[in-house]
Amino acid sequence: MPASRGFPVIGRLQAGPRDSITDVAGVTVGHRTLADGGVQTGVTVIRPHAGDAFRDKVPAAAVVINGFGKSVGLVQLAELGVLETPIALTNTFSVGCIATAQIRDCVADNPECGRSLPTVNPLVFECFDGFLNDIQRMAVTEADYGLALQSAAEDFEQGAVGAGRGMSSFQAKGGIGSASRIATIDAKTYTVGALVLSNYGKPEQLVLAGQSRGGELLQKLKAGDEPEKGSIIMVLATDAPLDARQLRRLATRAGAGLARTGSVFGHGSGDIALAFSTAWTVPDKPERPMPAVTLLHESRIDPLFQAAADSTEQAIVNALLSATAVTGRDGNHRPALAGLLSF
Amino acid sequence: MPASRGFPVIGRLQAGPRDSITDVAGVTVGHRTLADGGVQTGVTVIRPHAGDAFRDKVPAAAVVINGFGKSVGLVQLAELGVLETPIALTNTFSVGCIATAQIRDCVADNPECGRSLPTVNPLVFECFDGFLNDIQRMAVTEADYGLALQSAAEDFEQGAVGAGRGMSSFQAKGGIGSASRIATIDAKTYTVGALVLSNYGKPEQLVLAGQSRGGELLQKLKAGDEPEKGSIIMVLATDAPLDARQLRRLATRAGAGLARTGSVFGHGSGDIALAFSTAWTVPDKPERPMPAVTLLHESRIDPLFQAAADSTEQAIVNALLSATAVTGRDGNHRPALAGLLSF
Amino acid sequence: MPASRGFPVIGRLQAGPRDSITDVAGVTVGHRTLADGGVQTGVTVIRPHAGDAFRDKVPAAAVVINGFGKSVGLVQLAELGVLETPIALTNTFSVGCIATAQIRDCVADNPECGRSLPTVNPLVFECFDGFLNDIQRMAVTEADYGLALQSAAEDFEQGAVGAGRGMSSFQAKGGIGSASRIATIDAKTYTVGALVLSNYGKPEQLVLAGQSRGGELLQKLKAGDEPEKGSIIMVLATDAPLDARQLRRLATRAGAGLARTGSVFGHGSGDIALAFSTAWTVPDKPERPMPAVTLLHESRIDPLFQAAADSTEQAIVNALLSATAVTGRDGNHRPALAGLLSF
Amino acid sequence: MPASRGFPVIGRLQAGPRDSITDVAGVTVGHRTLADGGVQTGVTVIRPHAGDAFRDKVPAAAVVINGFGKSVGLVQLAELGVLETPIALTNTFSVGCIATAQIRDCVADNPECGRSLPTVNPLVFECFDGFLNDIQRMAVTEADYGLALQSAAEDFEQGAVGAGRGMSSFQAKGGIGSASRIATIDAKTYTVGALVLSNYGKPEQLVLAGQSRGGELLQKLKAGDEPEKGSIIMVLATDAPLDARQLRRLATRAGAGLARTGSVFGHGSGDIALAFSTAWTVPDKPERPMPAVTLLHESRIDPLFQAAADSTEQAIVNALLSATAVTGRDGNHRPALAGLLSF
Repeated sequence: MPASRGFPVIGRLQAGPRDSITDVAGVTVGHRTLADGGVQTGVTVIRPHAGDAFRDKVPAAAVVINGFGKSVGLVQLAELGVLETPIALTNTFSVGCIATAQIRDCVADNPECGRSLPTVNPLVFECFDGFLNDIQRMAVTEADYGLALQSAAEDFEQGAVGAGRGMSSFQAKGGIGSASRIATIDAKTYTVGALVLSNYGKPEQLVLAGQSRGGELLQKLKAGDEPEKGSIIMVLATDAPLDARQLRRLATRAGAGLARTGSVFGHGSGDIALAFSTAWTVPDKPERPMPAVTLLHESRIDPLFQAAADSTEQAIVNALLSATAVTGRDGNHRPALAGLLSF
Repeated sequence: MPASRGFPVIGRLQAGPRDSITDVAGVTVGHRTLADGGVQTGVTVIRPHAGDAFRDKVPAAAVVINGFGKSVGLVQLAELGVLETPIALTNTFSVGCIATAQIRDCVADNPECGRSLPTVNPLVFECFDGFLNDIQRMAVTEADYGLALQSAAEDFEQGAVGAGRGMSSFQAKGGIGSASRIATIDAKTYTVGALVLSNYGKPEQLVLAGQSRGGELLQKLKAGDEPEKGSIIMVLATDAPLDARQLRRLATRAGAGLARTGSVFGHGSGDIALAFSTAWTVPDKPERPMPAVTLLHESRIDPLFQAAADSTEQAIVNALLSATAVTGRDGNHRPALAGLLSF
Repeated sequence: MPASRGFPVIGRLQAGPRDSITDVAGVTVGHRTLADGGVQTGVTVIRPHAGDAFRDKVPAAAVVINGFGKSVGLVQLAELGVLETPIALTNTFSVGCIATAQIRDCVADNPECGRSLPTVNPLVFECFDGFLNDIQRMAVTEADYGLALQSAAEDFEQGAVGAGRGMSSFQAKGGIGSASRIATIDAKTYTVGALVLSNYGKPEQLVLAGQSRGGELLQKLKAGDEPEKGSIIMVLATDAPLDARQLRRLATRAGAGLARTGSVFGHGSGDIALAFSTAWTVPDKPERPMPAVTLLHESRIDPLFQAAADSTEQAIVNALLSATAVTGRDGNHRPALAGLLSF
Repeated sequence: MPASRGFPVIGRLQAGPRDSITDVAGVTVGHRTLADGGVQTGVTVIRPHAGDAFRDKVPAAAVVINGFGKSVGLVQLAELGVLETPIALTNTFSVGCIATAQIRDCVADNPECGRSLPTVNPLVFECFDGFLNDIQRMAVTEADYGLALQSAAEDFEQGAVGAGRGMSSFQAKGGIGSASRIATIDAKTYTVGALVLSNYGKPEQLVLAGQSRGGELLQKLKAGDEPEKGSIIMVLATDAPLDARQLRRLATRAGAGLARTGSVFGHGSGDIALAFSTAWTVPDKPERPMPAVTLLHESRIDPLFQAAADSTEQAIVNALLSATAVTGRDGNHRPALAGLLSF
């Protein structure tokens, strides 16, 4: 709810009731936060629906805007166009651990996974939180994935929590942000929700809600010229009836929202967007009936594109302004952007 | 030269002496403009160097941000990573004609093309100018390609000229724009130049040099809700020593510049970027020696990315503010944006 | 009808009644052949259904195995996943001309194309027939496209006809070939039909129906070592309910059929496959209702993959063994493979 | 050495002295095999050179022929075009574990990895060995990666070893195979070496060295109709001076070799090829000089393509005929193909 938060509002479209990815019915988000001295990291999960993601697979697609990233699961996603697990976010060195946790979790619920049923495709995104977090310590464990899952709910914290705990943006604190926008097409309304893990940006590039704030920020930070080693993961959910090809188009528009904040998709930044639809599912077993799907006519898709760009930008604003200051590894410190800039 | 033009200046990087793609040494641009009643269209060509583009092929790569477009030549470009002709821009229904003209032109200069030498790969980009131009009349002829080539020079007009003659942006006049930026890397300077064919944008989306001007524009236009049937072609040239893989990365950053102007890469808009380097060439015949190329180290590439995004945005601004009003097919009219908005 | 043709039969699956792409109900094929001295070329068209391809768009996807090719239309096909015209095949230098013919043809039937309706996306594939055909003469005209379309029928000639007139394979005569296979899935049967324009292959590589025949062929040809400047276009049609993503997977399997004939996807060969489905269509105007589509469950798709590879290989065999000897430009001659090898 | 092995020899090109990927100078291969009752699995590593793969990065590229696979590391490889670790192969459920091991290994040798230097990109390929191996037990540990690395040498075992321990092909035993071919270009010779992890194929499809053996194999196996849940990983090494774009083209030709053995790239099979060159390296730090690289002229590349296809097919033959029978999980058994078919 942008108004109550008091954060700047992006664009002309209306937000959903929570201004959050969970405005898309069925979607929930959970965090596991590790915050102890040099360990400032965590795990965030997005569940596409309340059921088993392996049994009822939602259509999805990803787009790699800049591939300096170690995400797991995009090969099979590109081939088959469905999610098979909740989407997990964590730090760069923990993707292997969380992928393993996703496999174990799926096998526990589906004992035939890797027996009579195909193996599950883990899906883990990451950003590099090594400035605040002692990433070489690999503090995240498989259990943290389960704890994040257990906490998944429609209401969830934003900012320096979960996978966002140790993230930086514009040399200030980054982290988790979410937002949503309502698109009206032929008198029907659809929701597009965004959740970002924001960890990108050089201070001089910052544009906040259309205002160039880089100069002001540089003065406050007295920042040196660090090469960007960040990343941003942008996840879009929608209840519009789209297939994987259309969802790939939707995910591409997250990049427009990102660019408006000053990003030029820096070399060292893994900038990846994924979009999924909750409008239909594919059953795990061919014996179960396939759905009869009536997709949105392509020429009606523009309001969803606008909602994707706007909700992504709003999610970034929400991440940047929700994130509280964190001190971590070797006393490294990232201040809260909200405290540095005047609004 | 932004100053002399009096147009808003984008970003913090310095422009080259012409603020034009021809600031990259060797690059020239030519137009052929058709402007007669219902015919408002043309051809623009970009020559990568003064020699024969088929004999000395420059490295290049393209990225399709939104593929609602009929461009010719991208399949082979993706496979081989080189240009073989000047880059041609024209209207949607004339790509076949101009591709044929490129073939004839190459054969005339290289009689062994398609005999002992491989066939040439034509490269033609297009946007849809059918609001102002009677596109169904297919007024562009093969001769127009030659005329555009003949006029290629370092100095060239911008706005409602060449392929830009009939183009629209934000329901005002669009067209050709160009700009350049200087990137400094390890005490060396490189130039990135951009040329755009601007034909995209719904009025309410307009952001000009960081200022949201959509509301103001809508009032002036009294515009109805037209679906976007536009497109934008963005061509980047650089003298930095990059290969096709790196140039694809550079081209991707044109999308960041585009997004800053309010575009969400609309469904009906063919948004395509191409980047080429003049730093080295590949000989047509294997008997001629291959160059020994020392590429830029990837971790040094960020200043070029910034220059790509900034020069693209500046080129769009220059296109929008250079374009004069045009009345065309059936009395359809697009006003000059410069006359509608105050600066 | 392999039996009646007396050609070797590929694989274990049954062919359709015609062993042709036109076994997929509604699909028709037409040729326009130019054969006069140094002009040995033509046009072949594949109509996906009897209606207007622009009004009722079939789902389709292409895969570029080796992109040394100048095909037109693949950018928009990749983005939107539908055909908008009949598929046209011709020689390398005539793609521009035939693309223009497709545009004119669509505008004639749909006067609102490029007015209130979007522009049409031409789709033209090509191979290089310059050994037999004086390709620099550009003998194909726009009228030839119309003549090919008019002749489209379920029964059509194979070999040295249409776009295949001047094509070479393995330094013998190449050309047009077609075949089909029946796939049984859950007690339902589906047809996969293939049509190839065969213009690839070095003689020493030839494998015919599993038999290595390169040595035998080399002796008969007394062939010199020519670099491969060929290409092969492989078009698959099916009545199975697949979407564009699945059709891209199907098209990929054409490459398996091709590889079995000895091809290693030579550098100078444009090897491209396209697959389309006739099971459903997308309406041109959003006011018309979108279909409710029940796709095939992905895990049931393997019989279609087998049919794709087998029908492609059979279509190549049928092309090679149907093609009659042709003498063309400068007395250049390609013998019929059927007369060189014993069966 | 095909002759001494007595295996059928593929193609007309000569093999290197070992007929192995280690014929490419500097390349070594190591295994860690776990074989104990229901645990039949392992790890195989390919080191591109004797140095530190993170410090001196070799150019590389991968192609996904069928993306039913969970490989790790392909996103960044596609973006940057270099390897940063040895290539690891293991079972599907162990990719996370081995990716973590690669990270730890790199950090141990490069303490600035993830501090002043960028994070390392792990690269792990997998196939599904769950028929013979109790994959749900996740028996592979991080230590197994180190043990595989330690054993890396020019001479290494093939067949049911390392990652190949539990793999199946054509319902017989699959596993590791390797081969090489010498390509001559302009009087210079280059080596292309292949290593495969073979785990694909339905018995009726088997083609061995050009001979269709499916009928014979089916009789011997009395096999039921199992859906394919396999995969094949194909790794190519070469000393030819190619860049990532050219290496992607080379990797594509592995698919031709695979198709000749009867594969149609089955739905459930992750068919992925990677190619790397040892001819030049990229330094980790930009302060170190970039090499001046003289690439192979594209039109000279065909002998390498032939070598890629032939060495891949030979590596598959060598895998199938080297693999000894294994009994594993729940008494599941895969016989040696060499004992079933007569040669």
